[in-house]
Amino acid sequence: MKETFRQLLLTGGVVAVIALTGCATKETALPIKDVGSFHIGGRPVTLTGLPTREITFTPGAAPIRVDPNGDFEVEAMYARYTLLTKPKARYPLLMWHGGGLSGVTWETKPDGNPGWENYFLWAGHDVYVSDAVERGRASWARYPEIFKSEPFFRTKKEAWELFRIGPVGSYRSDPAQRQFLPGTQFPIDAFDQMAKQSIPRWSTNDAATQDAYDAYVKKVCPCVIMAHSQGGNFAFTSALENPDLVKGIVIIEPSGSPDPATADYSRIKGIPMLWVWGDNTEQSAFWQAIVQRQETFRSRLQAAGGKADVLRLPQAGMRGNSHMIMMDKNSDQVAERIQVWMTSAGLMR
Amino acid sequence: MKETFRQLLLTGGVVAVIALTGCATKETALPIKDVGSFHIGGRPVTLTGLPTREITFTPGAAPIRVDPNGDFEVEAMYARYTLLTKPKARYPLLMWHGGGLSGVTWETKPDGNPGWENYFLWAGHDVYVSDAVERGRASWARYPEIFKSEPFFRTKKEAWELFRIGPVGSYRSDPAQRQFLPGTQFPIDAFDQMAKQSIPRWSTNDAATQDAYDAYVKKVCPCVIMAHSQGGNFAFTSALENPDLVKGIVIIEPSGSPDPATADYSRIKGIPMLWVWGDNTEQSAFWQAIVQRQETFRSRLQAAGGKADVLRLPQAGMRGNSHMIMMDKNSDQVAERIQVWMTSAGLMR
Repeated sequence: MKETFRQLLLTGGVVAVIALTGCATKETALPIKDVGSFHIGGRPVTLTGLPTREITFTPGAAPIRVDPNGDFEVEAMYARYTLLTKPKARYPLLMWHGGGLSGVTWETKPDGNPGWENYFLWAGHDVYVSDAVERGRASWARYPEIFKSEPFFRTKKEAWELFRIGPVGSYRSDPAQRQFLPGTQFPIDAFDQMAKQSIPRWSTNDAATQDAYDAYVKKVCPCVIMAHSQGGNFAFTSALENPDLVKGIVIIEPSGSPDPATADYSRIKGIPMLWVWGDNTEQSAFWQAIVQRQETFRSRLQAAGGKADVLRLPQAGMRGNSHMIMMDKNSDQVAERIQVWMTSAGLMR
Repeated sequence: MKETFRQLLLTGGVVAVIALTGCATKETALPIKDVGSFHIGGRPVTLTGLPTREITFTPGAAPIRVDPNGDFEVEAMYARYTLLTKPKARYPLLMWHGGGLSGVTWETKPDGNPGWENYFLWAGHDVYVSDAVERGRASWARYPEIFKSEPFFRTKKEAWELFRIGPVGSYRSDPAQRQFLPGTQFPIDAFDQMAKQSIPRWSTNDAATQDAYDAYVKKVCPCVIMAHSQGGNFAFTSALENPDLVKGIVIIEPSGSPDPATADYSRIKGIPMLWVWGDNTEQSAFWQAIVQRQETFRSRLQAAGGKADVLRLPQAGMRGNSHMIMMDKNSDQVAERIQVWMTSAGLMR
């Protein structure tokens, strides 16, 4: 814990660390009841008829003939939990990452400062951080036999532009030559460190990913879901599938949603939701289209009687946030706004 | 925490939870100073000259043309830490997984009971659990352009035999038809759940993996390393590279070592080491060869003046342990023996 972060917690009025710990001599300790993890969902699959091949494990050693045929478990997802002795939140908080990324999104930031997993633990939430199907510890499966297409790998240039860190065309291999958006909150020096978090993705696994998320929700909820980018659509869809189990959704720059024209808002209007948007979306046709679709979804949910709030950071006085809001320099300030909203939505004890 | 586990801790004499927590009303809480994670090691790489290709993200939507060329960060590894307010161990404990697996090895067991990460946290160790290069949250890179070969995927049959859960030839797709070794400690009903933890591996990434481990040791040590199977050789090699930073090694059924004939034992003879072997190794030519090489390495280290101990579980009265000792039903009892050894090796405060 960085001292500034702890001070923010102690002075911010949103949470009080001393109240959390209960033990006056240990106000800097987080009392943990349990930590652990599990895989959930997925299916067995059997491969047959593939040719064997030789693999050399050690240079100079005789190759070993490997038979790729057989039984496998595929398309599960992974979740790790940290549970408090006395959570202040009514429900555990499930953190769902975006595309080409894993649960690492929510952990320590690329600049080494505490991330949102830390923030919300100290704010009194039991926290679950997961890796979706095909990513990270969830593992991935042979293609094209099981996964139906080839994976693709995000370049640093794509991340630089898509995450609105620098203007389109401004990425350079040499960090010193890169041009970033004026006033960006993203910690520029940590950009290459963030790129180490990239994980290959497939375009053909959405159904399997949704199935695993739905099984995950059934296993650990009632809960609140916090989803980023690609995770947004999976969260909305899981809520439509399990409206009684999802007690709140915080969506950070979601990239997709169920069809706004046909979504059954009556099923999810009882779930309070908060959309959070960073800065500079209006300069990008790509992001403009996404925001527009989300605003349609949100306004229709609101019209149906839902609590469908939005936090537009620039209008709230916070300029320069990238798509990776949880990694931005002002991530604690944004988290505090979210925490205030959670209280207003009745999600804290 | 399962009640039996807590009782073992409270009555075992090895560790005392109340002494750990310091706060009499919270003897079931683990006081955590910090949790977090990072990527370490790796290198930037640039791909050029590859053809673009079309990817369809949403069925029915227009395909998007993707250019695979550009800059990437590759061959880093991932580590997650859980730090206590008052560790009882002198050094943090780094847990290194084996081949085709990730750090999940050390977390909650496939049968849902607490794993060794839990045990050693409650025993007073700061714990780091990592994913090596190419596995889990460490991510993987395009092949054959960056990784120099194709990955391979472990079948359930291979795990069943290699991990000494059932006799060679006894694996069946139908769990009810599988034959397991008499008296096995592996939780048979959790075998398919364990298979969900499998992660593809490459045979050509050892040098990159070692480089990342060495960078990891330089970042977080002095430390004690606990390594399983394939992780053993990486741990020995990191110790030879950084003998002043590695204060102890516990190796669980290591599959490899530096050449016993030429290893510079004088560099590592000051590092206490404990080898741990499960049951039924003598029935397998594969395991017999591995044990023999390890015993040569161990006896020469001992002859050079090192504390090179061995815990052969059957001889210690514990029968039926598989290669996945940390997942076996008696994993707490084995962990307790290791904890006793750590105390004897001067690794506890």
